[in-house]
Amino acid sequence: MYNKKTISKIFGKLLMIECLFLVITLFVSLIYREDDYMAFLYTAGITFSVASGLLFYSRNCRPELKKREGYIVVSVVWIIFSIFGCLPYLFSGSIPDISNAFFETMSGFTTTGSSVLNNIEEMSHGILFWRSLTQWLGGMGIIVLFIAVLPNIGIGNRELFIAEVPGPAPDKLTPSIAATAQKLWGLYVAFTFLETVLLWIGGMSLFDAVNHSFTTMATGGYSTKQASIAFYDSAFIQYVITVFMLIAGTNFSLSYMLVTGRPRKLFKDEEYKFYMTIVLVVSALISIGLFWEGSAVEKAIRDSVFTVASIITTTGYATADYELWSHFLKMLIFSLMFIGGCAGSTGGGFKVVRILLLVKNSYHEIKRMIHPNAVINIKYNKRRVPSKIVVNVMAFLILYIGVFAISTVIMSICSNNLETSISSVATTLGNIGPGFGDIGPTENFAYYPSWAKWFLSFLMLLGRLELFTVLILFSKTFWKK
Amino acid sequence: MYNKKTISKIFGKLLMIECLFLVITLFVSLIYREDDYMAFLYTAGITFSVASGLLFYSRNCRPELKKREGYIVVSVVWIIFSIFGCLPYLFSGSIPDISNAFFETMSGFTTTGSSVLNNIEEMSHGILFWRSLTQWLGGMGIIVLFIAVLPNIGIGNRELFIAEVPGPAPDKLTPSIAATAQKLWGLYVAFTFLETVLLWIGGMSLFDAVNHSFTTMATGGYSTKQASIAFYDSAFIQYVITVFMLIAGTNFSLSYMLVTGRPRKLFKDEEYKFYMTIVLVVSALISIGLFWEGSAVEKAIRDSVFTVASIITTTGYATADYELWSHFLKMLIFSLMFIGGCAGSTGGGFKVVRILLLVKNSYHEIKRMIHPNAVINIKYNKRRVPSKIVVNVMAFLILYIGVFAISTVIMSICSNNLETSISSVATTLGNIGPGFGDIGPTENFAYYPSWAKWFLSFLMLLGRLELFTVLILFSKTFWKK
Repeated sequence: MYNKKTISKIFGKLLMIECLFLVITLFVSLIYREDDYMAFLYTAGITFSVASGLLFYSRNCRPELKKREGYIVVSVVWIIFSIFGCLPYLFSGSIPDISNAFFETMSGFTTTGSSVLNNIEEMSHGILFWRSLTQWLGGMGIIVLFIAVLPNIGIGNRELFIAEVPGPAPDKLTPSIAATAQKLWGLYVAFTFLETVLLWIGGMSLFDAVNHSFTTMATGGYSTKQASIAFYDSAFIQYVITVFMLIAGTNFSLSYMLVTGRPRKLFKDEEYKFYMTIVLVVSALISIGLFWEGSAVEKAIRDSVFTVASIITTTGYATADYELWSHFLKMLIFSLMFIGGCAGSTGGGFKVVRILLLVKNSYHEIKRMIHPNAVINIKYNKRRVPSKIVVNVMAFLILYIGVFAISTVIMSICSNNLETSISSVATTLGNIGPGFGDIGPTENFAYYPSWAKWFLSFLMLLGRLELFTVLILFSKTFWKK
Repeated sequence: MYNKKTISKIFGKLLMIECLFLVITLFVSLIYREDDYMAFLYTAGITFSVASGLLFYSRNCRPELKKREGYIVVSVVWIIFSIFGCLPYLFSGSIPDISNAFFETMSGFTTTGSSVLNNIEEMSHGILFWRSLTQWLGGMGIIVLFIAVLPNIGIGNRELFIAEVPGPAPDKLTPSIAATAQKLWGLYVAFTFLETVLLWIGGMSLFDAVNHSFTTMATGGYSTKQASIAFYDSAFIQYVITVFMLIAGTNFSLSYMLVTGRPRKLFKDEEYKFYMTIVLVVSALISIGLFWEGSAVEKAIRDSVFTVASIITTTGYATADYELWSHFLKMLIFSLMFIGGCAGSTGGGFKVVRILLLVKNSYHEIKRMIHPNAVINIKYNKRRVPSKIVVNVMAFLILYIGVFAISTVIMSICSNNLETSISSVATTLGNIGPGFGDIGPTENFAYYPSWAKWFLSFLMLLGRLELFTVLILFSKTFWKK
């Protein structure tokens, strides 16, 4: 039915990539001469063995991915990466419980950033590096990396790419998917490097600078400090991170054009303008609110713009405990959880472009009621949007809400209040990180029962792959014939 | 531009109807020999004078409503009725503040049932009767009544009817809109009468029986007791009300067929089956939960089925304070707030049929992803649903969510917690009544600042007229040319 050898070959190669990153982490561990380097050695060994086995089994196969197999690969690779990726936590004893370890890893790869740890500073450098690295890998996308590194899978390239890259119909950078993937990853590496240098200049240790750059550019939000970015009492560091969070939440295709000397595309882009408008308006409102509540002016502006950027880009870093703000300011932050980054960025969530299309469509729907026979089309970036795309975005919202509502009811079984049950779903499905109530920015997810951690891990995956790619595997039609 | 005389004539006639009901209330007041009968006399006098003035001004006009004027009439009549309808509260001094009085009246006409009163038993019989009567009038619809009584408006009949009757594309009972309106009101009166008799037999005073029948059949929820239905420690009364709430939440066209000997239509109707399934499943879950928490079996079943019926039909009566239940059970009740009654019922909210269509469409959307070229159509009651209707339902949900989200942020300005700000919008936009947190079933809306009461009144109207009819008046296109 499905071509087992093709799938084995691809998973074999993918696991080799994970193994490579485990070996890098092993070196980090060895540099710091830490006792738990064995955890990475074991994991790399196991991963290498399984990958070799798969590659040996499929040695005679010339992989040709079809659409259906593409869906399976894209969904399952995240689960497999998390299964192998959680082994270092288990072997080192830093997270001895399997549901906790899996949760932490899936939260890493999906760049959610929700954590079960409440003793981050006690972790070894190796473990912290691996934790940040999972986010960096997941940020631009495992499959996108794969296509960039090994472009010869066959015809499925395009489908795989679309299934993993967030947002509706991404603008093509170049005609070839592989070249696009290479450019995206290249830019991603460059931004990460630049941020590392700036944070280092700002006074972070090199280790912390690298880790925070990984998790900023991935809009992940894992920090090497229990207090997150609030640990660094430096306005420079906080502003640098704010800027890079906003870059990470912007469509990388547009950033690529900016970098290569075509800035007009970026500043004429409707999604980007809408995204920056939201950031500025909400930051202004919160700044005024915090100033009103007694904050100093600069501190009020810094805290608000940082928190707004952190939540809308779905990064999830914290400099201020927004749980202590007034209800209205908290509500503004809460609303941002339902917006998310731009399409084609590393940010998760619903995506700005979708909101924009839905707002336009609602306005047009009212026009259509008045002139039922007139043909009224939505325009986006001066081009007519095919109604098929609009309907697809609407269907996505409805599915998102459906999943959101049912999950919130399920999570209410083990929550004590509405804030916690709603935000536990919002923050995992949106790949954000912290929530409200019992899972606020200074809390963590450790107290949940095991089943809730597995369930939330599943929501992270659903969110990262934008529902359809995963849900399709649960439909009868998919497995028929 | 717009035909002022046509609109004046229609409003004149409509106000005469309101005047008639004020006179009926005046008689009730006189029967009980209460001091505040003058409040009704004054109001009836003012209403009569204004109505006469309007009719005199438009005496030579043969009204011919066009579509646009129809939208104005349907939206504005609810506001005008509430302006005149709040005068008895002001004149009698029972609600001396204008924003409170308007809130209470709009909450009545829209059958929301949210109240600012915390001393209901101190009110006179006249005031209580008027309060229940506003709900009864608004339940089946002011315009529907108008068409039933005065069918000769002109060509706009059909548009008016559709603009006011909830739900997408109601099944036509008979080819003539006027005959349909008469049949609906006839059935409405008959059910109200039947419930009155049963409640009277159950031990209620005749006055209370009439009032509660008014507000049950309207799915309004105003009670003559501060403790709502919990006041009556009678299982019989509570079960009777449960059954009539469920009837009021059912499509009246189907009930009409049942009553006239065509029961199969009802039991084969997909919406009705889905509605009853939700009621039974959620009631069962809550019964088990309450039993688990220590309730006696019969009491657990009665409380749960009553509360479920009360919230899903958007009535809003209370027998049990669900605020005291565990978070999961509260969450189930909270979810019901987003479902609402059946299309063509007096229940508000999002409507069961829309949920059903969206669930079907989401499932089909996944199928369409696997077979992008196959034509896959949704079926409802064995008929193909035109994609235009599906898109319209989707657009409605999106508008609903947009209004909901923005309103929740606005309401968070004057709320202290998420439960209160979310549920204040859910309960008014859904025309339900009580919320959660500071506006739970044993609380009231008095503590809100004035602006919030006007804003919530607006949401009630938006909800009652299902957004489009009202929002259309705010679009530039509507007022152009």
